[in-house]
Amino acid sequence: MSERETTVPLGDRSYQLVIGRDIRRELAGRLDFLGDGAKVAVVTSPELRRVYGDEAVERLSKAGFQAWVAEIPDGPGHKTLATASLLYDQFVERRMERGSLAIALGGGAIGDVVGFVSATYMRGISYVQMPTTLIAQVDASIGGMVSIDHSKGKNLIGVFYQPKLVLIDVAMLDSLPDRQLRAGIAEILRYAVIAAPHLFETLEIRMEAILSRDPQVLTALIVDSCAIKAHLIGQDETGRGVRATLYYGHTFGHAIEAVTGYGRLSHGEAAAIGMVCAAEMARERGMIGSEFCDRQRGILQAAGLATSCPGDVDAGEIVDAMALDENVVGGRIRFIVPTGVGATEIRYDFSSDEAERAITATR
Amino acid sequence: MSERETTVPLGDRSYQLVIGRDIRRELAGRLDFLGDGAKVAVVTSPELRRVYGDEAVERLSKAGFQAWVAEIPDGPGHKTLATASLLYDQFVERRMERGSLAIALGGGAIGDVVGFVSATYMRGISYVQMPTTLIAQVDASIGGMVSIDHSKGKNLIGVFYQPKLVLIDVAMLDSLPDRQLRAGIAEILRYAVIAAPHLFETLEIRMEAILSRDPQVLTALIVDSCAIKAHLIGQDETGRGVRATLYYGHTFGHAIEAVTGYGRLSHGEAAAIGMVCAAEMARERGMIGSEFCDRQRGILQAAGLATSCPGDVDAGEIVDAMALDENVVGGRIRFIVPTGVGATEIRYDFSSDEAERAITATR
Repeated sequence: MSERETTVPLGDRSYQLVIGRDIRRELAGRLDFLGDGAKVAVVTSPELRRVYGDEAVERLSKAGFQAWVAEIPDGPGHKTLATASLLYDQFVERRMERGSLAIALGGGAIGDVVGFVSATYMRGISYVQMPTTLIAQVDASIGGMVSIDHSKGKNLIGVFYQPKLVLIDVAMLDSLPDRQLRAGIAEILRYAVIAAPHLFETLEIRMEAILSRDPQVLTALIVDSCAIKAHLIGQDETGRGVRATLYYGHTFGHAIEAVTGYGRLSHGEAAAIGMVCAAEMARERGMIGSEFCDRQRGILQAAGLATSCPGDVDAGEIVDAMALDENVVGGRIRFIVPTGVGATEIRYDFSSDEAERAITATR
Repeated sequence: MSERETTVPLGDRSYQLVIGRDIRRELAGRLDFLGDGAKVAVVTSPELRRVYGDEAVERLSKAGFQAWVAEIPDGPGHKTLATASLLYDQFVERRMERGSLAIALGGGAIGDVVGFVSATYMRGISYVQMPTTLIAQVDASIGGMVSIDHSKGKNLIGVFYQPKLVLIDVAMLDSLPDRQLRAGIAEILRYAVIAAPHLFETLEIRMEAILSRDPQVLTALIVDSCAIKAHLIGQDETGRGVRATLYYGHTFGHAIEAVTGYGRLSHGEAAAIGMVCAAEMARERGMIGSEFCDRQRGILQAAGLATSCPGDVDAGEIVDAMALDENVVGGRIRFIVPTGVGATEIRYDFSSDEAERAITATR
C-alpha cells in the first residue's frame, strides 16, 4: 500500500504526517532538518526497544547520525514528572544539545513525555513522533499538546510544542493487543461525531473488518482521522476555539480515569464512556434524539467497548473530579455535546446535576 | 522619585517594566488583563511573605481578587524540579485555572520557578515578576527565559515564556544584604561592557554612592540596565542572535558555579569572575588591550567582588563543565568576548586550552 501525507498547517512550524505500512524504515531519510552527525535519541520502552528501537538506531547510525536508545517506561501510569526526570538525566548524560533530536517511539505516554522533555530541555530541542498504538497514531502524536499528569488530574503539566514530523507505521498495529485496538476505535468515533458522517457510517458497517485489522480499512480510518485533526489544529492550535471540540467525551472521560484510578480504564475506554454520557446529557436537554445515542452506543458495543461507568464508582465523585480538570473556565466546566452526526457544540451551561444524571442514566 | 516605564517590544506579547520606589503598592491596579475576581497566587519565600507577601495579598483581596500566598524556598539551590513540583501541588490544591495569575515575589530563583510552572501549568497561565533582589531586578525577571537547574548543569530545563508585567520596587533594595547588592553590580557591569560606555563610567566614578544605596544613582543604573535588556530581547527573543551577548561572563560563570557546587558562589559572583576570564581570553588573542581588563577588574574590586576562581578549583574541571552547558552548538562552546567598552563579539573559535589558560592567568 502506498504512503499518504497530510500537512499540519502552522506556518513556519508546519509539519507532515506520513502514514503507510513499514514507513518506519524511511525515518533516517526524512530528517533533513538535522545537521550532519547530529545526536538522535530514540526514546522507547524496554519492550519496544527489542521490536523497533534497536533497528531504528541501526538505520540512523548508518545514515551518519549519533543515534542511541533512551529507555523509559510506557503506559498511562508513567506520564509523570518522575519519568520526565529520568529522561532529562539520560539527555544530560549523553550530552544532548540544542541541535539534537528526540524520537518518541511508543504509545501516547511516551509521546507526551518526549514532547514535554523536548520542549523544556535547554528550552527546546526538535522531536519526531513515531506512535506505535492506534490511539497515539490517530490522536496523541498529532498537535503538540504535550503534557504529563499530576496525581490529582490528567495533563495538568504541559505545553504546546509541535513535532518536526509524525511517522505513522500502520504495520505496527499488526501486533497491537486487542484492547488497545478497541481504545483507538473510540477516538476515531470521536472524529466521526465531530466532523465526519462518512467515517461514522464506516464504523457502523465495517467493524468486523476493522477488528480483524484489514490493512486497507484501517489505513483509511487513520488517514481520515489524521486529516480531521490536522485541519482542526491548523485552525486553532491551542484549543481555545474549534479544536476544543476534540474534547468530546473527554471531559467525562478524564474524570472517569481519575476517579477509577489511572490504569484501570485506558484513556480511550474512558473516552468511550464519556461520549455516551455527553450524548445522554444532550439528549436529556432535547439537543439530540435518542436514535443518535443508540447508533453511537451500537458502534462502541460492536467494538467491544464498555458504554457505562463501572458500578462501584460514585457519579458525584466523577463530577467533582471534572472541576479539577483543565476544561474549567471561570469556574464553569466545558462540555462538548453532539447535536447530530458531524455536529457538536461547545457549552459551559450544563450543571453538575445534569452531568451526574447523565452518568447515572447510562448505567 | 517618580516611576519609569520601559516596554519589552514583542508584538502581542509586549509588556511593561515599571521601576520606582514603593511601586509594589500599585500592583492590583495594573492587573487589568485579568478577569474580575480571578485567582492570584503570590508565590514567595516564608521570609518575604512576612515583609511583602501578606501585604500584597491584602491589597489584591481589597481589589476583588481571590488572592493567596504560595510558599516555596528561594535561593539558587532551590531552582529545581522538586521546588516546581511543590508549586504544582499548591496550584492544584487551590484549583488554579487557566485564567488565574501567579506573581513571583522574590529573587531570581523564585522568578524562574514561577515562570516555569506558569508556562507549564495547564499549558500556560499568566504571571507577573516582582523581583526583590538587584540581580533579579536588572536581569532574571526580564525576558521570559525561565528555567531550572539539573544537578549536572544550570538552566538545563526551561522554556521561553514572557511575563505580563515586571514591577521593580527599588525600595526593596534598602534591606538587601550587601553580598546580594554586589552580585547585582556584576550584572550591571555586564550591560555596560556589552552596550553602554556611560554606564561603565558611572560604575567607575560612583561606586561609593552605589554601595551606600543612593536611591537616585541606583535607580538610574536599574533603569539603564532594564532598557538595554528590553532592547536586546525585542531584537532577539530566544537568544540565538544578539541577545546571546548577555552571556558575557556567563559561559565561564555557569561552569564555575557548577564546579564549586551551587551556593558557594552566587550567580552574580561567578559571572564577575567569568567576565574577568573572558576578557583575559580576548586579551591573550590581542582582541582587546590590558587597559580594559584593568578597568573592568577595578570596578569589580571596588564593588567588593572576587576577580579570580577559588584556588581549590581545577581549571580543567571548569572547562569540562562548559561542555555540559546550554551554550554548546555543534560541539563548540560559545564565548562572548569584549573588544571594547560597549562592544562584544560572539565567538565559537576559542579552544578549551585558551579557556583554561585564561582561568589560570586570572589567579
